[in-house]
Amino acid sequence: MELNPLFNLDAIPARPEPTGLLYGEDVLSVAQFDRDKIDYIFTRANEMREMVKRVGKFDLIPDKVAACIFYEPSTRTSSSFIAAMQRLGGSVIPITSGVSFSSVSKGETLGDTMRVLEQYADVVVLRHPEVGAAKEAASAASVPVINAGDGPGEHPTQALLDLFTIQDELGQIDGLKIAMLGDLRYGRTVHSLTKLLLQYDVQLRYVSPEVLRLPMNLMNRVIDSGRNVRETYSLADVIRDVDVLYVTRVQKERFSDLSQYEQVKNFYEITPEVMEEAKEKMIVMHPLPRVGEIPESLDSDPRAAYFRQAQNGMYVRMALLAGVLGRA
Amino acid sequence: MELNPLFNLDAIPARPEPTGLLYGEDVLSVAQFDRDKIDYIFTRANEMREMVKRVGKFDLIPDKVAACIFYEPSTRTSSSFIAAMQRLGGSVIPITSGVSFSSVSKGETLGDTMRVLEQYADVVVLRHPEVGAAKEAASAASVPVINAGDGPGEHPTQALLDLFTIQDELGQIDGLKIAMLGDLRYGRTVHSLTKLLLQYDVQLRYVSPEVLRLPMNLMNRVIDSGRNVRETYSLADVIRDVDVLYVTRVQKERFSDLSQYEQVKNFYEITPEVMEEAKEKMIVMHPLPRVGEIPESLDSDPRAAYFRQAQNGMYVRMALLAGVLGRA
Amino acid sequence: MELNPLFNLDAIPARPEPTGLLYGEDVLSVAQFDRDKIDYIFTRANEMREMVKRVGKFDLIPDKVAACIFYEPSTRTSSSFIAAMQRLGGSVIPITSGVSFSSVSKGETLGDTMRVLEQYADVVVLRHPEVGAAKEAASAASVPVINAGDGPGEHPTQALLDLFTIQDELGQIDGLKIAMLGDLRYGRTVHSLTKLLLQYDVQLRYVSPEVLRLPMNLMNRVIDSGRNVRETYSLADVIRDVDVLYVTRVQKERFSDLSQYEQVKNFYEITPEVMEEAKEKMIVMHPLPRVGEIPESLDSDPRAAYFRQAQNGMYVRMALLAGVLGRA
Repeated sequence: MELNPLFNLDAIPARPEPTGLLYGEDVLSVAQFDRDKIDYIFTRANEMREMVKRVGKFDLIPDKVAACIFYEPSTRTSSSFIAAMQRLGGSVIPITSGVSFSSVSKGETLGDTMRVLEQYADVVVLRHPEVGAAKEAASAASVPVINAGDGPGEHPTQALLDLFTIQDELGQIDGLKIAMLGDLRYGRTVHSLTKLLLQYDVQLRYVSPEVLRLPMNLMNRVIDSGRNVRETYSLADVIRDVDVLYVTRVQKERFSDLSQYEQVKNFYEITPEVMEEAKEKMIVMHPLPRVGEIPESLDSDPRAAYFRQAQNGMYVRMALLAGVLGRA
Repeated sequence: MELNPLFNLDAIPARPEPTGLLYGEDVLSVAQFDRDKIDYIFTRANEMREMVKRVGKFDLIPDKVAACIFYEPSTRTSSSFIAAMQRLGGSVIPITSGVSFSSVSKGETLGDTMRVLEQYADVVVLRHPEVGAAKEAASAASVPVINAGDGPGEHPTQALLDLFTIQDELGQIDGLKIAMLGDLRYGRTVHSLTKLLLQYDVQLRYVSPEVLRLPMNLMNRVIDSGRNVRETYSLADVIRDVDVLYVTRVQKERFSDLSQYEQVKNFYEITPEVMEEAKEKMIVMHPLPRVGEIPESLDSDPRAAYFRQAQNGMYVRMALLAGVLGRA
Repeated sequence: MELNPLFNLDAIPARPEPTGLLYGEDVLSVAQFDRDKIDYIFTRANEMREMVKRVGKFDLIPDKVAACIFYEPSTRTSSSFIAAMQRLGGSVIPITSGVSFSSVSKGETLGDTMRVLEQYADVVVLRHPEVGAAKEAASAASVPVINAGDGPGEHPTQALLDLFTIQDELGQIDGLKIAMLGDLRYGRTVHSLTKLLLQYDVQLRYVSPEVLRLPMNLMNRVIDSGRNVRETYSLADVIRDVDVLYVTRVQKERFSDLSQYEQVKNFYEITPEVMEEAKEKMIVMHPLPRVGEIPESLDSDPRAAYFRQAQNGMYVRMALLAGVLGRA
């Protein structure tokens, strides 16, 4: 049987050569980003924002497919990655459910799941409950893997969007006084952001109850870096002169003694009254979701940056996706 | 580091100015639609149908992203919205699973979920099990929210597609005799359609067992409207002269006394035999799913309009999505 | 109210006439594919691969929407279909979760679910746990239905991609010696591939423990076909001269006597040592997921074809989707 060909391959223009500082790279850990790379990503994220505001969506990677596989649900992060891909003109295979029941997880290794997904997709975005999963996945996959959080391990895109927000809102990072508040012990975002900030000339303030202090090894890294750093139990100690107040949830479950929880929780609520003491030019950030640390009454305060911070997540992820795919 | 810009922003044409009667509006309740707006939506829905039949898909809102967040599964409604968005050239963030387990619902308010989703998406389609959820969501969101059903509350897009189907199938609404049958007490679609119909010059017939009669307050509204209205237990009373027979499920669970259920259920089955008595030009509607009220043997009857009704849902939703986004 | 029309319908070019050998067909069973049709699909699958390698994605069916409804999770198969649709420029309504809880399944027949989905979508891809479900769905739907596996029944797209891989890797099918190994009793892919292979001049070897031998009725079909066929318990009997070694999982659950399982499982592991005895030009296939039958140390062997096999699935499904939609 002779068949007419469907396509005239000769008439089809070749795709552009992949390019850029991030091409082919996995995004696994904040440790892989030096200031040059960070500047690069931020420049691109800024351009992404300009374009989204101007045209909503544009065809930078219309030929690319991302597999977004989430072994634990995270509406916020998965929505952000999906929107990022779509606004770049790309497509998404959403695998956000059932993975724990499907044959993929029934005995199949994470490596094999990656080896299969890369047959269909150009990049894999992975959320996984176990530390090190992203690294394991990346070593199996030949396409780029982006770590969208691996348990208590890393969540590098969150840290980058946090840092981008500081730069974007305040015009600089060097020279700032940055306080982190709440659960500094288990708060993955606090740890990652801290690591990134050590590349900058910042002063750091850590505000938490005793049981939720920054882990010792991380605190030692901060100290070794020579940064000006202080710990305190009291928000009042820092509120008057910080440029950034990065708030996290103090989760009841962290306390073995609930009376201890009841004692401290109100110390860490950022009410409009508290904010009266803060500088006029500063920002309040939060990785969200919030559950009481910041009342809705604060939302109209121009210093409340947490929803803009969420939006920045989309732009930073656009920059990363386009970057690792060789188009930014 | 000097970077070449990715985009030449000056060369990018501006997006069209948003326009139209629905631009920026939330779709929360049938109460917000007067006859002018209804006519408007129906005109647009008709055009959407013409285009889908002609070209399948077209780029009316290629730059727009819809977040479809369903806190309870509804394959029919979510599929209809997703297809509507895609046939308009737009993109969808499907959030149809896991939301009850994810951090979004773990303590986060519905308002905050909206405040985050609107950072990524241009419109939110929301299904929620609780009355009033859509209104609450809309008051938090600055992008349009479309209520895709909030529990026993409202389901305005269903009511609009029901009304559109009557208009489309019979060429008019004024002057018709419309019977609703089955569970008139709990049937959300019956309530919403009734409210819309009170804007038209129609005669209404309500056919149900005693325990499933139309709620008193709604019946009083019908009576106050001056419409010709009758209630009856018997389909035989109305079958010969109705133009529209709107059938709903009589669910066993509604009866505390199961023998009562067994007694009535067959009275409300629309068999081909029953249809022999009906007018030649009339339609049978059903919001679906059906489970016995209408046998498959009726499907080939040209008066069986329920699957066309489902299809109309896609066109009406296309009109609404394009409308609230300022493109129709 | 006079409204300006949104579209100038007269200016819109008509869509191309549907064409091709598969147009409008359901894909339900391997029984429907003769060698002409198989050649046709393979030619198209090859072209799809060329195009994907060249441009990633292209607009062959940009106007089409596929509903992918999976009543049981299957990350691999659903991802493959979704990517296939997207790389053809089409859209997907992903229904991969919650279907068992949603109203669609609560009492609604599969037929009705199809009758609704076809109002929104141009093609339905269906995975279902029950034998015969795909056929039932197809008889209700007027749009093409593609069977993505119905329980222990059929999985025709898997069999086609398996056969395509043999043809693609070895340049031919006729004349080959093909061994299938592992669970030949319950292995759906083994049964379907066997049926397809009976159209070719091949020698067949079936290697399994006693309790997992090929079902009698299928073995009789093979024998009646006149093909050269042998059964054996021992991989060593065949490893030296097979062209294709198709490996499947031996699942512990299949054995009532676990000591029997422990006894046999190692006989069927394809280690690099085992492969030293195999021909230089031959391939190892596996439908995946694997769980121990093939160690990762074999992956770098050029004869290990299982991941290329998975990728071929996407191209074959692209050919089928475009085919039944009249564009290939």
